[in-house]
Amino acid sequence: MNYAMIFQTLGYGMVVEAGLMLFSLFISLFHREFDGAIAIGITIASLLAVGFALSRIRTKSRQFYARDGFAVVTLLWLIFAAFGALPFVISGAIPNYVDAYFEIMSGFTTTGASIILDLDAIPRGLMFWRCMTQWVGGMGVLVFMLAVLPMSNDSSMHLMRAEVPGPTKGKLVPRMRSTAVTLYLIYVAMSIIQVILLCAGKMPLYEAITYTFNTASTGGFFVTNSAIAGYDSIYIEVVITVFMLLFGVNFNVYFLLLVRKFKKALKNEELIVFASIVAISIAVISVNVFRQCFGVEDTLRKAAFQVASIISTTGFTTVDFDQWPQLSRTILVALMFCGACAGSTGGGAKVIRIIISFKSARRSVYKVMHPNSVRIIHVDGERIDDETVSAVGAYMLAYFLITAAAVLLVSVDGMSFETGFTAVAACLNNIGPGLGGVGPVENYSAFSWFSKLVLTLSMLIGRLEIYPILLLFTPSVWKKIHR
Amino acid sequence: MNYAMIFQTLGYGMVVEAGLMLFSLFISLFHREFDGAIAIGITIASLLAVGFALSRIRTKSRQFYARDGFAVVTLLWLIFAAFGALPFVISGAIPNYVDAYFEIMSGFTTTGASIILDLDAIPRGLMFWRCMTQWVGGMGVLVFMLAVLPMSNDSSMHLMRAEVPGPTKGKLVPRMRSTAVTLYLIYVAMSIIQVILLCAGKMPLYEAITYTFNTASTGGFFVTNSAIAGYDSIYIEVVITVFMLLFGVNFNVYFLLLVRKFKKALKNEELIVFASIVAISIAVISVNVFRQCFGVEDTLRKAAFQVASIISTTGFTTVDFDQWPQLSRTILVALMFCGACAGSTGGGAKVIRIIISFKSARRSVYKVMHPNSVRIIHVDGERIDDETVSAVGAYMLAYFLITAAAVLLVSVDGMSFETGFTAVAACLNNIGPGLGGVGPVENYSAFSWFSKLVLTLSMLIGRLEIYPILLLFTPSVWKKIHR
Repeated sequence: MNYAMIFQTLGYGMVVEAGLMLFSLFISLFHREFDGAIAIGITIASLLAVGFALSRIRTKSRQFYARDGFAVVTLLWLIFAAFGALPFVISGAIPNYVDAYFEIMSGFTTTGASIILDLDAIPRGLMFWRCMTQWVGGMGVLVFMLAVLPMSNDSSMHLMRAEVPGPTKGKLVPRMRSTAVTLYLIYVAMSIIQVILLCAGKMPLYEAITYTFNTASTGGFFVTNSAIAGYDSIYIEVVITVFMLLFGVNFNVYFLLLVRKFKKALKNEELIVFASIVAISIAVISVNVFRQCFGVEDTLRKAAFQVASIISTTGFTTVDFDQWPQLSRTILVALMFCGACAGSTGGGAKVIRIIISFKSARRSVYKVMHPNSVRIIHVDGERIDDETVSAVGAYMLAYFLITAAAVLLVSVDGMSFETGFTAVAACLNNIGPGLGGVGPVENYSAFSWFSKLVLTLSMLIGRLEIYPILLLFTPSVWKKIHR
Repeated sequence: MNYAMIFQTLGYGMVVEAGLMLFSLFISLFHREFDGAIAIGITIASLLAVGFALSRIRTKSRQFYARDGFAVVTLLWLIFAAFGALPFVISGAIPNYVDAYFEIMSGFTTTGASIILDLDAIPRGLMFWRCMTQWVGGMGVLVFMLAVLPMSNDSSMHLMRAEVPGPTKGKLVPRMRSTAVTLYLIYVAMSIIQVILLCAGKMPLYEAITYTFNTASTGGFFVTNSAIAGYDSIYIEVVITVFMLLFGVNFNVYFLLLVRKFKKALKNEELIVFASIVAISIAVISVNVFRQCFGVEDTLRKAAFQVASIISTTGFTTVDFDQWPQLSRTILVALMFCGACAGSTGGGAKVIRIIISFKSARRSVYKVMHPNSVRIIHVDGERIDDETVSAVGAYMLAYFLITAAAVLLVSVDGMSFETGFTAVAACLNNIGPGLGGVGPVENYSAFSWFSKLVLTLSMLIGRLEIYPILLLFTPSVWKKIHR
């Protein structure tokens, strides 16, 4: 491990976080929320102090390996949440540190699960910070750093590999720095378009920005107690539905569109499967909940919103889907595990992994019939090598083992099976609301501090796609040998 | 496909089933249950008629491939249940055919899920048949045929591969016929010992035999409304606990003990992990349910019985574990998916697959750190080739996809998430009782016929370990080309 480089990078990261917090400081001051402003100010000061100190560390070697990258990413996320939670505790908005840590980790990981009972009581500056964590976390805190800070290509690659979701990194990877910038430009451009469209629907600018933060990141924090239902505007509901889906698509597709490779973009297999799952789910749920809605248009709109919200792992709600029939509720739970496309801001197992898993299962059936056959799995017409296929298999197995372990640990609290299972599903897949005790009109405040920590860790495991966190618990990673 | 051979083998199978039914006929006559005797008699007659007709089919070729084996196994199980259900419908004991089919498939697959509300109303001859289906299904209907009928080694191998659970077939495979006989001798010997021990505890012979059927097969049908609690004998409870665990162990271990390879038998990795999971689960559950029991001895006994019952996938209950704290209930659900050892009569994913999955997940973490490394997975000191590892991965993925699909289909009934999820878990893993609406004091009668069929199929998918059933739905299997 190159500890010097790791600490130095962490130091840079903390300075960047301090910079990000400045926005909330301004908003606090603008709204004359002095308690909040002081809390944010103290946090910025401590971030800068520690950050500068760390960034001064002398590095003997500039060598940076995969495991260094993983270590930096994991530690930085833990630290971002650790400091990000401070303003809430200092200002008293969320008195308990575990609660605040849960809330901010939920933000950075774009989960959107909340323990805040009265959202309207949170000062605007702090609320802005809470929503901004989602927007920053959506594209990845390190991708942000890569876009902002000058770094060597070598270390960039290892950092980005650890943070950008998906089993294969596609063609974007080679030129790291410019890729990070391109991704962020797409992200920023789409966010700005959404803000403009929401403002066009008479949403105030502050709300439009915070809602965009929460949509673009597929995070899904509620901003007010009344949530989106408070606007009661069909236009805004439709805009948000469309943008939730757009941010759930692999950004490679937009990149291809930008370079005018329209055919290749629209033939993307993951995109087609994603769209099909969305369409089928909306159709089935619409039939299933028709009686609980008012006419065809209302049914389709509510079903589309909820399907888009869950599969993109945003977690917004316009209706208490916990009251829906069991079939629709179960479909939503299945969509939680499916998740969005790789290379999007969404969470979950990712559609591409479901595709590869399915093809791999189908191949194993074929192999039983023709034991000596060799059959290659293709995605987008390209050959997926056996190593990737078995890596996806191992990933999914680890995913289910972690789900089982987390459900077991959370069950100590004695909540119902449905509540415990969907709480883990909603946190691990970075959704937000689940069913039962963590349904759309409930929240996570009732869990014990132990369960909250388990769920917090689940969020991070889900967001960073397991391996960085597992490596953290692998003793041999921390040894200096084996270089 | 060698259709002639397939039909011929099915014909032999039906004659064998008729032979098995004779026992129940005698018991019906002995107890003067003439309705039952007539119903059984009609069924035997039809089995013989169709069976003899099919067995007369001329075979042009004696060639028998893997897919022929899979087809025979799947069809034979479907047919065994189809005819096995007839006596209940004809006698009116279970008027609805779907219900009877569910019940008997639950028997043959050693699931033990029941739709019968009043067990005491079932005539003794029919009850004996119901329990006997479990005993026959426990070791496999085709292994039974192999032990009884003379067959070529080539076709035997394909049949046995399709029916005996587990990812690797071990060293027992080469000499099929003698292996089948050895396995059955072990099975019969252990069953006889259990009958003797139960009789020694003052259990009447009829009950001792039926309970042994249900224990040895890890099936777990209840025989009377009051179930095992009705005996209220600590001795019998302990005997059954021990035998449930013994029948959940890989029979290879007993084979090794028989040939005096004690060291190798006791060093069996699957056995050690199985024993560890059992011990840890008993310990945690004991602490968790201590308050609901009467003292240490009572707690340990109840916890041990339930853990043994669920991990061996028997499904007997001495206590309504649905009333236990959430932690214990969740542990039981996890044990359902874990299941017993490969090569035992138990169901579930099998401990060996969990071991390989775990090692494969651990290896993929290692690979992230050392991308160019080659790391071999070992079990019992022997190298597991990559093909087996990825086959296990594909199997587990198919398992979870099937679980998700079945939960979705069953959710149409509108039962709670817990009920639907654990009903599928309990049927797919061949356990019997689940939680909530299918808990120990409930049963499956409340489901719609559609859900019952889905659950019936799940039982068979679980018992035959997925592939034979999936092959049935693969059109290319049924073509004559590709030979």
